[in-house]
Amino acid sequence: MTIDPTSVKALTFDVFGTVVDWRSSLVREGEALGRAKGLKVSWSAFADGWRGFYQPMLERVRSGAIPWTKLDDLHRMALDQLLVQFGVVGLTEDEIDHLNRVWHRLDPWHDAVPGLVRLKRKFILATLSNGNVALLVNMAKRAGLPWDAVLGAEVARHYKPQPEAYRTTADLLGLAPAQCMMVAAHNGDLAAAGALGFRTAFVHRRTEHGPTQMTDLRPARDWDVVAEDFIDLAEQLGC
Amino acid sequence: MTIDPTSVKALTFDVFGTVVDWRSSLVREGEALGRAKGLKVSWSAFADGWRGFYQPMLERVRSGAIPWTKLDDLHRMALDQLLVQFGVVGLTEDEIDHLNRVWHRLDPWHDAVPGLVRLKRKFILATLSNGNVALLVNMAKRAGLPWDAVLGAEVARHYKPQPEAYRTTADLLGLAPAQCMMVAAHNGDLAAAGALGFRTAFVHRRTEHGPTQMTDLRPARDWDVVAEDFIDLAEQLGC
Repeated sequence: MTIDPTSVKALTFDVFGTVVDWRSSLVREGEALGRAKGLKVSWSAFADGWRGFYQPMLERVRSGAIPWTKLDDLHRMALDQLLVQFGVVGLTEDEIDHLNRVWHRLDPWHDAVPGLVRLKRKFILATLSNGNVALLVNMAKRAGLPWDAVLGAEVARHYKPQPEAYRTTADLLGLAPAQCMMVAAHNGDLAAAGALGFRTAFVHRRTEHGPTQMTDLRPARDWDVVAEDFIDLAEQLGC
Repeated sequence: MTIDPTSVKALTFDVFGTVVDWRSSLVREGEALGRAKGLKVSWSAFADGWRGFYQPMLERVRSGAIPWTKLDDLHRMALDQLLVQFGVVGLTEDEIDHLNRVWHRLDPWHDAVPGLVRLKRKFILATLSNGNVALLVNMAKRAGLPWDAVLGAEVARHYKPQPEAYRTTADLLGLAPAQCMMVAAHNGDLAAAGALGFRTAFVHRRTEHGPTQMTDLRPARDWDVVAEDFIDLAEQLGC
């Protein structure tokens, strides 16, 4: 590690993929729904398709093509298209809304909660996610994620990697960027945060995109910390 | 109680006076500083003076006389005047900044933490305070206040009782006002929240302003819940 960890006051976390395993969670809920409703759907393809809409949807907001729209609503716009594409019919509005909120019910990676509990003793733990506040609060409540603050894109009204998302989160915590360490399984997120002066911690999540993942398999740069998981991150940060 | 508590998803809390005992905490820290620096100051008068600046300062922001200014900075503007008024000299900039941050180090009322721990099992617990996020996060970290979300004036950029402070907090939680219950020791705060459709809980804090308190000694209206303290609130809400 190239930095003095006592200079860091807050850890700011990417959530989807870094803290929670969105793909397995979507497949789990999709399969249960499929059994209950007699649907013939490849739920891993459905999950990948849903996440495939993610960056293009965010880009429409970032570019100004559409006004600020929270992630729950972007998820729903994508879901409506996916249901047609996968030939899913016969769901009520309540069932579709419940399915859309599967993103509020994602399971954490097995090391996430015990790692966060250790890290919380020494650092302020804040989300710095593109998820909206309600999504992240409901997820934390269900999964036991011990955040000190739920911040990120929605309070900044800018999606990562736009600098406002990172800067607003640090500002709200009353901290300089160098007092914050961005924790993410994604090199691009760390690059954007690092460019603004955040410290950086890469955490390996080699199966976020399933068994044939091709991206973010290794750190692309010499980040301040490179950790196997959140337990290893806690060890390296002296927690 | 006039409402079905299962319709309420989140409790939104006023903090200064309702959760924490700002006056005793200011007096405690002031007296310690006075002993260390040989200052002859009535710290209860100093505390009351500091809080006396509160509404006039907020009103300058609410009226648009000055642009959005976070509470830490309003506290500092008031403190600089108070130090002159009370003849306090010889403090370094670091000492003045530390004194200004006494608001981050306020002690909770003795029932607050055990009450919140019980309430957290059933409800989302969010701040809906005029305190800025950093102040509230640091206070919670020190005092063990188990918030699910730290929201309120700063994320809305409007100070209570302006409606935007309440509405933005409910919106960020993804809830309708009627799914939120405002918890406060101040009738005015409950009146503003209630007018927007929030449920209301009055908690008695008869010594917030010291032994001769004249205001908010009793509920001014038939609020949805009237509680002696946070333990009683938890009991009444079935936690």
